[in-house]
Formats: sequence, structure tokens, C-alpha cells
Amino acid sequence: MKKVLLLGATGYVGSDFSKLLSERFYEVIRIGRSELEGRSISELVDSWGSHAADFLINSAGYTGKPNVDACELDKANCLHGNAVLPGTISKVCQQLGLRWGHVSSGCIFTGRRGDGGGFTELDSPNFSFRQNNCSFYSGTKALGEEILRDDPSCFVWRLRIPFSNLDSPRNYLSKVMRYDTLLEAENSLSYLPEFVSACIDCFSLNAAPGIYNVTNPGAVKTSEVAQMIQNAGLTKKEFRFFETEERFMALAAKTPRSNCVMDSSKALAAGLKLRPIEEVLRESLANWVWESKVSA
Amino acid sequence: MKKVLLLGATGYVGSDFSKLLSERFYEVIRIGRSELEGRSISELVDSWGSHAADFLINSAGYTGKPNVDACELDKANCLHGNAVLPGTISKVCQQLGLRWGHVSSGCIFTGRRGDGGGFTELDSPNFSFRQNNCSFYSGTKALGEEILRDDPSCFVWRLRIPFSNLDSPRNYLSKVMRYDTLLEAENSLSYLPEFVSACIDCFSLNAAPGIYNVTNPGAVKTSEVAQMIQNAGLTKKEFRFFETEERFMALAAKTPRSNCVMDSSKALAAGLKLRPIEEVLRESLANWVWESKVSA
Repeated sequence: MKKVLLLGATGYVGSDFSKLLSERFYEVIRIGRSELEGRSISELVDSWGSHAADFLINSAGYTGKPNVDACELDKANCLHGNAVLPGTISKVCQQLGLRWGHVSSGCIFTGRRGDGGGFTELDSPNFSFRQNNCSFYSGTKALGEEILRDDPSCFVWRLRIPFSNLDSPRNYLSKVMRYDTLLEAENSLSYLPEFVSACIDCFSLNAAPGIYNVTNPGAVKTSEVAQMIQNAGLTKKEFRFFETEERFMALAAKTPRSNCVMDSSKALAAGLKLRPIEEVLRESLANWVWESKVSA
Repeated sequence: MKKVLLLGATGYVGSDFSKLLSERFYEVIRIGRSELEGRSISELVDSWGSHAADFLINSAGYTGKPNVDACELDKANCLHGNAVLPGTISKVCQQLGLRWGHVSSGCIFTGRRGDGGGFTELDSPNFSFRQNNCSFYSGTKALGEEILRDDPSCFVWRLRIPFSNLDSPRNYLSKVMRYDTLLEAENSLSYLPEFVSACIDCFSLNAAPGIYNVTNPGAVKTSEVAQMIQNAGLTKKEFRFFETEERFMALAAKTPRSNCVMDSSKALAAGLKLRPIEEVLRESLANWVWESKVSA
């Protein structure tokens, strides 16, 4: 039975990792916050090394609740969770010779490439502290990737706006259904069950470590998602949209949002299973389970 | 007897704080790394609150040894020490209603203002992640200031290239004497004994919290400092200089250096004692004590 060390097992992404790893017969060793903080690198090497795990997954991170605006009020913790912690894990894993993966984010990009395509793993982040145009959250995620750049045994998995068929305050589809007014924008998205499965596949398929855009192929506009929700009969409400991004920023947001299109062809070429975004959106909405009926 | 909590008491700057505070009859409570890490905000509030201190000084930070290039190889720790830690201290001090001061750095600037003057406390850093032109070290120091921006009871003291009459690997004058080849550049500097004295005076003079450029008035070029060292009879060697900054970067440095002129008039107006840079340089060289004779 293969062993996996899992950080952040109680989060929105981590709990899906925890469930799927168990279903795939991995032994999951959950590393809590208390086992992580205040420990030196050598203490962590001893402690984690004692498990003789096959790999490690870091799904711990600071996302801000209910949304990214919250990070502006807790900058130090945000920086710690998204940039310092990955660097610490990297050092420990390098000393242990342990392969590992880090849940990063596509939110370090904005828009599309100059040639109209989605951003690839070779493009430099264009929504980061270094571009001076980003939220504090995006800045810290980009710094996290910068810190991991030279780690030869690390997968950097870029998640982008996760959703599934299970209603949740963290599910993009739930957010779209519940927001009073929406911002029209074009985005690539990650269907959460396929995201976690693809990440685990990186190890089982022996993919080459490095950055992967783990997003479902394609992109959708907010209005298209709203239309699909109506077509699925999940709401009768008329969706309203902010007239401009400026109105959105003035009325509803404290810090700029990333909206971007990602290219997932590297992930697909590596054998990771990510179906087209329209298909998984339609499927999620057809199999929608309201939060009151989601089992814990 | 007034009480002071001191973080980083064993460092180059912190040990001068420690000495001068004792000389001024403050009771100094030294907070070590082990008392800081792995503690929650509320644990720190309890622990630090129990001392009923009058103020706190944070002279802990990650500077890189022997120089700033080392930070490029230890980014996570650098980010933690210079940006996350100040944010943690800020939260604890706010909960305790404790005034405090943070040793920041003028290295978040490069050059002079557009109008030829030195940078004031109202100028935005121009050598930072947000300008995408800096060393990782400078980037983390600028993020640290960003995190402290809204703390109403914090002094942010910008130190800039510390020196004194005591030979030390951290003393700018010792570095100039020992480097094989020098980079010609114009800089403001901080005479360390006056720096720590001025910082302590912020509390005793009841200055308004906020940012202070704690640098000695004026600026000097490396070649002028070299000439003063020769005039003082401290070396017979012929100083050599890199032909250009490009040669310096190609041959001797991994990451860009900040060279900048600071305006210290706000500090002077607040009553902090900082003599002109030429005067304190000359005095330090006249009273020079070689490392072998510096008592611990």
C-alpha cells in the first residue's frame, strides 16, 4: 500500500484529495498545522521521514474567506501560507528525496496571451507583485511559484476556480447562483474531482515534475455559466451583471480579480484526464446536489 | 525602570540596541527565536503581555550572509523573517496596545528622486517586487513595509548600510577595506550608534509613529569613502573599482544592489540626532578599532 503525506486535508481541495486517495487505496497521513509550525527543517525531516511515504501533497494554502478580499486584511498569514510554507516543504522534501506536489493557482495570470491563446507553463505570470497589478493573494501565489522554481522534484499544479456538482460556499457554481450581481469575464476553470485525480495521476503515471495547468480545456464566460444554470432549471432568478469592471471594483471588490484563459495541453499530453469545460459544467449542473443534502 | 521587549538581540543591529538600552537603564527582555516560532497570536499576546513592557523593538530580520546574494538561495526564510514576522508582531502589539518599532531598510529605493533630492517617507519604494527590478531581499523588505502600512502604533525605521568605528564583517567600512574590487555608487548611510539611539529616542521623545529614514544627512560615493580610509592611514592598498555596474553584476554579484540617497529631514525635525555623514565617517575612521581588538 502506497503512503501519501497530505497537508491541508480539511480544506475544500484537500478534503477531495483525502477522499480520492483513500478510494484509490493509498494510505493517507494527514499533517496538521500543529505538526508543521515551530518545527525546524531538520525536525520536519525526521518526523516526515519516519513515515517513509511515497510522495507528499501540499493542499494547504491561504485563500481568504469568503473571497480574496479577505487576504488584504491578513497579509502576513497569506504570505506565510502561500509562499513561505511551500519553500519550507520544498527543503524538507529535497532532503528526504521525496517527490511532492503543490496546489498553485492560475490566478497569477490575467486575460489571454498576446496571440489570443491561453497561457502555457512557459509564460511568465502577468498578474503578480512583479507586474504591480494584482491582489495580495495573487502576489503571494506567484511568489510561491518563484520559490519552487528550482525544485527538481516538485509538481506545481495550477488550479483555477474550482467547481463540482456539490453545492458549497467554495464552489464556483454555488457562488454564481448566490451572488446578487455578477461580473462578466472569461475564465478557464477546474472541475475539482478531475483536478485532484489528475494531480494524483502525476505520480502514478510518472510524469515529469514541473508546472502543470490543471484546468479543463477551454474557457467560459460568466453569462454562459449563468445560462447553463438556468437551462438546468436550478434557479428561476434573472442574473444581473455589473455594467463594467470599474463598477464591479467600485461597488463589490476591494482588490483586483484575475480573469484568465489557461492552456492545459501540457497536462493532456502527459496523460492527465481533463474533459472539455462545457461537458463537465453541464454534467455538474445535471447532477447538482444542494448543500443541505451534501453529506459531510 | 522602563521595560523593552527586544527581538533579534544577537544580530549586528540588535546587539547595539541591547547594549544601549541597558546603558540607558531600560530593562531589556530578549525574545529568542524559539519563543516566537510555532506560537499562535493569542499565545504571543499572553506571553509578551505578561511582561507589561513599555515598548517593543524588532531588530530580527533576514539579511543574508556574507551579503544579499545569499537571500536568493533561501527565499522562504528571507520572506518569513522580513515580511511575515513583522506582520505577526504587528498583530500581537495591536492586541496589547503596545507601541513598537521595526528595523526596515532604505534598500527598497534605488538612485535619487526625479527632482534630484533624496527619497522621503512619502515616496513609494522604487526597488521592490512591484517594480520588478530588485533583489529578493529588497522585495521582502518592501513587502514588510506594505504589511505594516496600516499599523497606527508602529515606527518603521529605515536603516541604510550600517557602519561604526568597530571593525566587523557587517560594518560597511570593513567591507570597503576588504573587498578586492569596489563598485562606485552614491549612497546614504547609517552610523549604527546614532541609528539605535535615534530609534530609542522615538519612544522617549514621543514621536509620531510612522516611517522614518534613519540615515545620516547627506550621501557619499564609494570612492570618497575609500579616500577617507586612505587619509586615515588605515590601509596602504590601492582601491580598485569595477569599470561599470554591468561588470560588477557579471563578475561579483548574483542579484541587483540598491544604491540610493535618502532624505532624513523628517527624522531630524522629530528631534532625532543624526550628524552629517562626512563627520561621522571621519570620526569612525579616526577611532577605528580592528576586529582582533573589538571586545565581544
